[in-house]
Amino acid sequence: SLAGHQKLDRLIVVFDDNRITIDGSTDLTCSDDVAQRFSAYGWDVTRLGPISEDLDALEKALMAARNAGTERPQLLILPTKVGFPSPDWTDRHEAHGNPFTAEDVLRTKEVMGIPPDSFWAPNDIVSACRDAASTVGHEHYQAWSHRLAQHQERELWDATWLGHIAGWHAHLPVFTQGDSIATRVAIQKTFDAVLSGLPGLVAGSADLTGNTGTKLSGQDPMSASSPGGRQIYFGIREHAMGAAMVGMALHGGVLPVGGTFFVFFDYMKPSVRLAAISGAKCLFVFTHDSVGVGEDGPTHQPIEHLAALRSIPDLQVIRPADANETAAALQAAIEFPGPTALVLSRQNVPVITDGSAVSIGAGVLRVVAQPDVVLVATGSEVQVALRAADTLHTVHGRQCQVVSLPSWDRFEKFRLDHPEDAEAILPSSVPTVSIEAGTTFGWERYADRCIGIDRFGASAPGALALENLGINDQHVVQVTLDLLGTKP
Amino acid sequence: SLAGHQKLDRLIVVFDDNRITIDGSTDLTCSDDVAQRFSAYGWDVTRLGPISEDLDALEKALMAARNAGTERPQLLILPTKVGFPSPDWTDRHEAHGNPFTAEDVLRTKEVMGIPPDSFWAPNDIVSACRDAASTVGHEHYQAWSHRLAQHQERELWDATWLGHIAGWHAHLPVFTQGDSIATRVAIQKTFDAVLSGLPGLVAGSADLTGNTGTKLSGQDPMSASSPGGRQIYFGIREHAMGAAMVGMALHGGVLPVGGTFFVFFDYMKPSVRLAAISGAKCLFVFTHDSVGVGEDGPTHQPIEHLAALRSIPDLQVIRPADANETAAALQAAIEFPGPTALVLSRQNVPVITDGSAVSIGAGVLRVVAQPDVVLVATGSEVQVALRAADTLHTVHGRQCQVVSLPSWDRFEKFRLDHPEDAEAILPSSVPTVSIEAGTTFGWERYADRCIGIDRFGASAPGALALENLGINDQHVVQVTLDLLGTKP
Repeated sequence: SLAGHQKLDRLIVVFDDNRITIDGSTDLTCSDDVAQRFSAYGWDVTRLGPISEDLDALEKALMAARNAGTERPQLLILPTKVGFPSPDWTDRHEAHGNPFTAEDVLRTKEVMGIPPDSFWAPNDIVSACRDAASTVGHEHYQAWSHRLAQHQERELWDATWLGHIAGWHAHLPVFTQGDSIATRVAIQKTFDAVLSGLPGLVAGSADLTGNTGTKLSGQDPMSASSPGGRQIYFGIREHAMGAAMVGMALHGGVLPVGGTFFVFFDYMKPSVRLAAISGAKCLFVFTHDSVGVGEDGPTHQPIEHLAALRSIPDLQVIRPADANETAAALQAAIEFPGPTALVLSRQNVPVITDGSAVSIGAGVLRVVAQPDVVLVATGSEVQVALRAADTLHTVHGRQCQVVSLPSWDRFEKFRLDHPEDAEAILPSSVPTVSIEAGTTFGWERYADRCIGIDRFGASAPGALALENLGINDQHVVQVTLDLLGTKP
Repeated sequence: SLAGHQKLDRLIVVFDDNRITIDGSTDLTCSDDVAQRFSAYGWDVTRLGPISEDLDALEKALMAARNAGTERPQLLILPTKVGFPSPDWTDRHEAHGNPFTAEDVLRTKEVMGIPPDSFWAPNDIVSACRDAASTVGHEHYQAWSHRLAQHQERELWDATWLGHIAGWHAHLPVFTQGDSIATRVAIQKTFDAVLSGLPGLVAGSADLTGNTGTKLSGQDPMSASSPGGRQIYFGIREHAMGAAMVGMALHGGVLPVGGTFFVFFDYMKPSVRLAAISGAKCLFVFTHDSVGVGEDGPTHQPIEHLAALRSIPDLQVIRPADANETAAALQAAIEFPGPTALVLSRQNVPVITDGSAVSIGAGVLRVVAQPDVVLVATGSEVQVALRAADTLHTVHGRQCQVVSLPSWDRFEKFRLDHPEDAEAILPSSVPTVSIEAGTTFGWERYADRCIGIDRFGASAPGALALENLGINDQHVVQVTLDLLGTKP
C-alpha cells in the first residue's frame, strides 16, 4: 500500500505462487485474489504463466518489469511447484519445512540429469559468472568511482553516508533550567536545530507526526513527485514504518526517524527486533510514554513497554528526564552504531538536568555526602524523586541521593569498564527505591523497593492517572520511610 | 482475508470514509482502492453514496446487507464528513483528535437546531427507545429462554458456556517418569485426552498446526461448509489469529486455542495485550521456545520473549518443565478467568515431575535438608539444573535445592497468601542461581546469579546452540561455585 502510494517503480516483487504452506494447500485458509489485491494498492500486476523453469522467459519478464515505465511497483505472479523436481516431494507441503535427506537429493539430481556430487556446478557456467563479475562488475565500479571523485557535492555525499557533518553537535540546543517542556516537544526542537548537520536524516510517523515531535520544520513531504522530501508520511502502518526504516538504514546514506505512541510499539516490535539483529541504525521515537497519556485509557497507556524494549539485545533505549537529556539522547543515538529507541513524555516536565547523565547512562542529580537512601528514576518521574528527596530531608531528616537513569544499556556498559564509578552512582550498600511510571518488572536489578504501575492504566486526565496509580511524592516518601524502617 | 475465506456473511462492516487522518488528508499516504481490495478478499462491497445523515437510507442499506444472501461478508463504504456539522471543524483533521470546546459544541448545536443543554435528547425518541427495549427486547428474551429451557442438549450448552463438563480433568494424562517428550507434543496429547470434556475448545494455528501441538485428532476443519469444525486454519496471520481469538472468547461459549512459534508472538502482541485487558479467556500456545529451535537461527530464536510475556499484567504465563507440568498447565489455563500463554519446547525433554509445581507456580524437585544453594529454572532448563545439582553434590560436596518455577504470576499470588511456604521454596537467605534459555532480564527478582542468553542466538543444531550459549551443566556448576566463593 505504501509502495503503491509512493509509486516505487524500482520495486519488483516476484510472487512465488506455489499454493503451498506448512499446513498444506493455501486453499485451507486463503481465497484472496492476489492480483486484484495488489492492483488495488496501485501496483502493476503481471501473471507470468508456467515459466518458472525457463530462464530466458524469466529474464525477459524481469527486464520488462524493469522497463515498464508505468511509475508503479511491479508484482510478477509466477506459478511454481514446491520441491520440484523431486520425484517424491514435488507439490507436497512437507517440502516446505523438512530438509531433503541425502537420498532425496540423489533422486532429485538423477531426475535433473546432474552428477551426484555435492555443490556441483558446470565449469563453463562457473567461469562465465566469475568473468562477468570481474569484467562487467569491474567496469561499473570504475565508472561509478570516477563519477563520485568528480562530483561537486562529494563532501555532502561523504557526510551523508557517514551520518553527519563534522561538528554537527555544536548546534544541539541547551534548554533553560526551570522551563517546562514535554520531551516530545524537546526532540522536535532538537531535530530542527541540528537538521542541517545530519544530511541523511528523514523523519516521519505512523499518522502522529505533530504529536510525536517528528515534524521537521520547513521540509517537504517525501512523495512520488518529490522523492527528496525529508518528511515521510508513513500512514497508520506502524509495522510497515518499522520495516521500511530497517530497509532504509541497511541501504545506507539515510538515517530514518519514525515516531508513534509508545503503546503502538507493539505493532512494530518485529521490525524493531530486526533492526537490532541487523545493526540497522534507526531512530524510533516513542512518545506518550506512560499513563500520563490520560483520557485515552488503558488501550493507549503503556505499562510493560519499557521492560519489553530493555530486554531486546543490541537495542539502545533512552528515556530522558527532561529536554536537556533529550538533546543528549539524540547525540547518543547518532553516535551509536545500531538502533535507538527514545521514550518521551506527552506531558510537560521541568528542565532539571544538564543532560550529562545520558553519556554514561546515569547521573547523580542530588548529591549528598552520606546517603541514607538512593532514589533512582527515569523520564518524567525524576522530578518526583527530587521532590520526594526534599521532603525526606526537610521533614524526616533523611539524606537522599537522587539518580537519573535514562539508559540501562549505556549504564551497564559503563559499569563493566568503571565498576567503582558506577558503584558511586548506585551504591549497592545503600537502600534504593526506584520510581518509574510503568511495570516494576526488571527493576530489582537496581532497587530494593520498586515503585511503578503493575496493572493496566485508567482513563482519566494524565496527572490524575499518575497520582492515583501511586506515582506521587507522598507515595515515594512513604515507601522510602518504610524501607528505612521508619513509620511516616 | 480470513473472513472472506470463511464466508462470514453475518459480518457487516461500515467503512466511515471521511478521508481524514490525524496528520491530514488520507491523500498524504494512501492511494488504495478500498472497494477493489476488499473485493479481492472475497467480500461484497457496496458504495453507499452521501447518505450518512439519512437514517432511513442507512437502515435500508444495513437491512440489504443483512439479507444479501451472497455468503460473503459485507463492506458498506459510507462517505462521511469528520466534525459535521460544526461550522468550524467540518472536514478538518483537527476534529479527529481534539475535543470540541464548549463553544464548539454550542455553535454546532445551533446549526443542528437543538437546545444548548448537555445530554439533551427529544423526549419522544427517548421514550420510543425505552419502550422498544422493554417490549421487543423482552419478547426476544422470553422466546429465547423458552427455546433454551426445552432444548434437548441443554446440559451440553451449559457446559459449553461454563467452559467444561464436570470432572473433565479426570482425563488429564499422566506421563511416565523417564520418558522423553517435547512439551509441544505433550500439549497435543493432552488436548486429545480431554477434548470431549471441553466442548467449547477450538484449536488452530498460524500455519504451524502440526508443529505447535494444536492439531486435534479426528476433528474437521472449520470452514464455510463446516462451521462446527473444531480445527481452525488461521493461515500465516498471527495478528488476525490473536484478534479473532479475543473476539471468540468475548462472544463466549468458545475456548479458542491458537499456536505459533514463540518468536512470532511479536506479531500478535497487540492482541495478547487486548486479551489481558479484556479478561478474554484465550489459550496462546507458543512453542519452539528457545535457541533450541536450531538451524533457523536468530530470527526464529526467542530471547526476550519470556520477559515480554511476564511483564504483561493479567496474563497467566506458564513454561512447563516437562509433559506432566504441561498437562497441569492446561488445567491451570481452564481454571483461570483470563488469558493464558503456554511456552513449550520444540525439543524432547525428560519427564521428571509429577506436574504439581504448576498449581502454586513453583515446586521443589530436589529436596535437601540444609541447602547451600538453590538452583531455580523453568521449562527445558529444569533438567539442566537437576544434573548440575547432582554434580555439585557428588563432585563438590554442595547441597543443592532445585526448584521448577513454571509460572511467576501464580507463584507471586501464592506468596502473597502463603509467605512462609513460598520462603521455603525460594529461601531469601540462601544463595540462588537461575537458569533459563532466554534473557536474564527480570530474574534478579529470584536469583543472585542469572544464567541466560542476553544476546541474539545462532544458527546451529538446537542442542549445540544451547550448549555454546552457556545453557549446560558445566556452566551452571561453575557459576554456582563462583557464587559460593569456591573455585571450580
